Amino acid sequence: MAESEHAAVRPLANGQTRIDFQTAPERYRHWKLKIDGDVATLLMDVDEKGALFEGYELKLNSYDLGVDIELADAIERLRFEHPQVRAVVIRSGKPRVFCAGANIRMLAGATHAHKVNFCKFTNETRNGIEDLSENSGLKSICAINGTAAGGGYELALAADRIMLVDDGSSSVALPELPLLAVLPGTGGLTRVSDKRKVRRDHADVFCTTEEGVKGKRAVEWRLVDDVVPGSKFDDAVMARAKEFAAQSPRNGAGRGIKLSPLTRTFAADGVEYGTLSVEFNRAERIATITLRGPSAPPANADAMVALGANFWPLQLARELDDAILNIRLNELDVAAIVFKSSGDPASVLAYDHFLDAHSSHWLAREIRHLWKRVLKRVDLTSRSLVTLIEPGSCFAGTLAELPFASDRSYMLAPTLPSPASGGGPGRAGDNKPTATIALGDVNFGAYPMSNGLTRLGCRFLAAPADLEAAKGAREKMLDAEAAEKLGLITFALDDIDWDDEVRMFLEERASFSPDSLTGMEANLRFAGPETMESKIFARLTAWQNWIFQRPNAIGEEGALKRYGTGQKPVFDTRRV
Amino acid sequence: MAESEHAAVRPLANGQTRIDFQTAPERYRHWKLKIDGDVATLLMDVDEKGALFEGYELKLNSYDLGVDIELADAIERLRFEHPQVRAVVIRSGKPRVFCAGANIRMLAGATHAHKVNFCKFTNETRNGIEDLSENSGLKSICAINGTAAGGGYELALAADRIMLVDDGSSSVALPELPLLAVLPGTGGLTRVSDKRKVRRDHADVFCTTEEGVKGKRAVEWRLVDDVVPGSKFDDAVMARAKEFAAQSPRNGAGRGIKLSPLTRTFAADGVEYGTLSVEFNRAERIATITLRGPSAPPANADAMVALGANFWPLQLARELDDAILNIRLNELDVAAIVFKSSGDPASVLAYDHFLDAHSSHWLAREIRHLWKRVLKRVDLTSRSLVTLIEPGSCFAGTLAELPFASDRSYMLAPTLPSPASGGGPGRAGDNKPTATIALGDVNFGAYPMSNGLTRLGCRFLAAPADLEAAKGAREKMLDAEAAEKLGLITFALDDIDWDDEVRMFLEERASFSPDSLTGMEANLRFAGPETMESKIFARLTAWQNWIFQRPNAIGEEGALKRYGTGQKPVFDTRRV
Repeated sequence: MAESEHAAVRPLANGQTRIDFQTAPERYRHWKLKIDGDVATLLMDVDEKGALFEGYELKLNSYDLGVDIELADAIERLRFEHPQVRAVVIRSGKPRVFCAGANIRMLAGATHAHKVNFCKFTNETRNGIEDLSENSGLKSICAINGTAAGGGYELALAADRIMLVDDGSSSVALPELPLLAVLPGTGGLTRVSDKRKVRRDHADVFCTTEEGVKGKRAVEWRLVDDVVPGSKFDDAVMARAKEFAAQSPRNGAGRGIKLSPLTRTFAADGVEYGTLSVEFNRAERIATITLRGPSAPPANADAMVALGANFWPLQLARELDDAILNIRLNELDVAAIVFKSSGDPASVLAYDHFLDAHSSHWLAREIRHLWKRVLKRVDLTSRSLVTLIEPGSCFAGTLAELPFASDRSYMLAPTLPSPASGGGPGRAGDNKPTATIALGDVNFGAYPMSNGLTRLGCRFLAAPADLEAAKGAREKMLDAEAAEKLGLITFALDDIDWDDEVRMFLEERASFSPDSLTGMEANLRFAGPETMESKIFARLTAWQNWIFQRPNAIGEEGALKRYGTGQKPVFDTRRV
Repeated sequence: MAESEHAAVRPLANGQTRIDFQTAPERYRHWKLKIDGDVATLLMDVDEKGALFEGYELKLNSYDLGVDIELADAIERLRFEHPQVRAVVIRSGKPRVFCAGANIRMLAGATHAHKVNFCKFTNETRNGIEDLSENSGLKSICAINGTAAGGGYELALAADRIMLVDDGSSSVALPELPLLAVLPGTGGLTRVSDKRKVRRDHADVFCTTEEGVKGKRAVEWRLVDDVVPGSKFDDAVMARAKEFAAQSPRNGAGRGIKLSPLTRTFAADGVEYGTLSVEFNRAERIATITLRGPSAPPANADAMVALGANFWPLQLARELDDAILNIRLNELDVAAIVFKSSGDPASVLAYDHFLDAHSSHWLAREIRHLWKRVLKRVDLTSRSLVTLIEPGSCFAGTLAELPFASDRSYMLAPTLPSPASGGGPGRAGDNKPTATIALGDVNFGAYPMSNGLTRLGCRFLAAPADLEAAKGAREKMLDAEAAEKLGLITFALDDIDWDDEVRMFLEERASFSPDSLTGMEANLRFAGPETMESKIFARLTAWQNWIFQRPNAIGEEGALKRYGTGQKPVFDTRRV
């Protein structure tokens, strides 16, 4: 159970029993989102007493997962609630410190699983800031007045422009290695080398210099873009923000929509959302997520805006995101996530057509980008993923990305001949329509994975002809035989084999070492090229996770444990 | 000390005190290298009693590092001693088993450092087989008659063609996950997904199926290229080998050269080779490798062939390779490797010109490719690397790759004005020529890193103009000021600062956590793109190293420890 997981190390603050990813500006304790015309300011002003767990304080604008949940929420609201905003400035609400990075006492006391999941979420949030710039026209500026250390500088690295006060003391630093014997693992090393393209020996000096770099050298070494005297700093930041805003292609001049709170009901063995259900079979260590398809799409874009957060694709994306995060952080014992769906595949395709038809509408575009990010979150979830395509399901278009994101998919083949009218019984005695899967344009470009490929492109790396064949089958309701022939599913099974095969697979999966599954899936899911984003989750994260297991960091005499005690860490000096 | 490292877990067999990477065909215990015209056969016939360490037997053609050292040696000999060979067949000398993979009892009893270094070396060897095909025109066939499991199949994956007997039992398998709770980490997962481009769900099934895949399905899933009935197998393999040989561009029809044994003298605090010295300062945890430059190159290609293994670039590459491997495996306490050199930089450039002039000669080409591989080995060595460019050094052309492969370089700037004649004292009272560095064509293409970029290309990712400026400075003797201006060195220091700065750097490096240095260097050294090869060392290896730390694999109840005991492993079921 989730609670005992956390409680084993330290209890959640305020008597919570699970980490909640839902919040709203009026409840923020650490961030202020200010809108001034077309420029937004994200002010980081962390409440020391507002830690997620008991046992530490968030001094010097240091952060924990709770702080980052608010940041992620604020960015979503910029996208959906404030379409008039065209540039964003990230700065500190505290004097002389921008951000001291991830809270060290939090890290020192956290379980390995929490450290890993915390870093994954914060990475996803920073990728979201870059996506905001690249795809939603909202460029960001990080204005550093004070010290930006560790995760503080890593947050800055996600911005398009880093501006530093030139006051003789304000600096940027990645002191993780010298201070804590861990890595700047929230994208830090990768963004220094691959985004800012800092020369490797300069990066080596920078990442081993506890006090960081300031002034002109910070610019010369490409660590920041500008250093500006304190007296001119605010003006320079605002001028740059105005310049970014003027260049922005964002066209959402109209009113935004309200991201209303998700309606969720938590029960002992499940969570009920508006458009999906999560069911926990704790004995078998399975979470089943059943997505419910829509009815007909609205008549026009105005009707979509009027529906707002209740517009089916938006509601489902937000609920699926929340469901996945809840499993990741609160349900560590779940071995496999099973995706199921129910509904009319034609209606799912109709929603895709609707979004295609309104692809120049800011809201339609934001929804597509949200789905892209949610699907990436699925790809990066360290649980075995399987999709069961059964009679009455609606894995079409956008929802067909789930079987393609899964490690395997099973599809039920009809055992009885289908009536000439199409459809017909899937299993004996079942009146549901035959199981089908359907592709649309969205499956061929709208939802790239973090490695830059579409899921089908990655699936068919060996044979571009297979990708073309799949393209040719768009908009068709494909039964198990057709889907298998096209290579879209792993196994087509008839009614006789279905229950046993699926059960055996899930039992087998639960019997394997969770760690080796994590490693295997992290490799097999990302065939082909790597991008900066995928390198962060592969090369950097995998090494950081390794270090998070090493006594030199986490042992009783390790640097994370001894930080702040006045005692020096003791290292095993052997290089591995 | 190395001995105690190994002895802590188990002693080396035959009373050895360190792992030796030097061997020769007449001493092989596990492989037979047969040459038949233009086709070579590498026959794997592992001597059960020939394990590197005490405490286990190498049953069923399983291997340990000692077996792989012989394989690596045999491949080098194919390159240099047998230039007439144009195709190579890898097969088993044992009935019903091709290779059972890495020996499990060896793995279960090995230190973490040994596991990691063992996997790194075996990966380098398999990359060498692919390099042999790609760059030396020697395509390889893996002929599998029996079971190829785990590392056995991973070896096959390095070949250009995998041929499997169709006898109802011969199979390929990656049972690491279900059997041992670790990954197929010797390139297995990456070559399945990125080289063979196996569909990800098929790969998922394959890698979780202990008994593997055989017959037609193995071909359909792209795991092997051919399945052939037993009665026709030998003929089919030979026909394919002859076809590969006929297509080979290899033009070394002349006699090969003999890779004579290296002349080495091991002392308590150093190793003396013909062209370099290694000096251990154990108190400071530093290994200093001083490379000695050459005199004039030979008159022509025949003279190069006549010199054979004594030809300076070949001798130095082999000795440097051995020195690096010795430090990696036997000197775990070394924190930093310091590269120094002595000699005439113009002579080093002259050798580069000689090899350029004879670039169509098989031996010149093989030497260049050997340097490429040795430099990659340097890149992948988990120790801090620093080059000290001092008066009298010869970091020119090929040798200039060492400062570019280093995490940092320091160069001594003259404190006294140089005489008009050029050169002159570097430090007060020193008659050596001023420290210089010099570039040649080789620095711009001959030696790509595993990520596909040259070291200078990677260094100047941010600014292609800087790369062009460096190109413009080829063939010039650059002093510290010029080198610093071109961005070729990290710091230029004068005589007053030199000793203190270098000492402080090395002391600081030795004070940091070795693990975090390993992780940081593995990230900062490889900016930019990833290739299949670099993914093997990044994504796959880093995850495998993480798993090699997890109790589910290595704990007392873990799968590696319990394998073969009849007891099932007990897993912590929480996913991370």
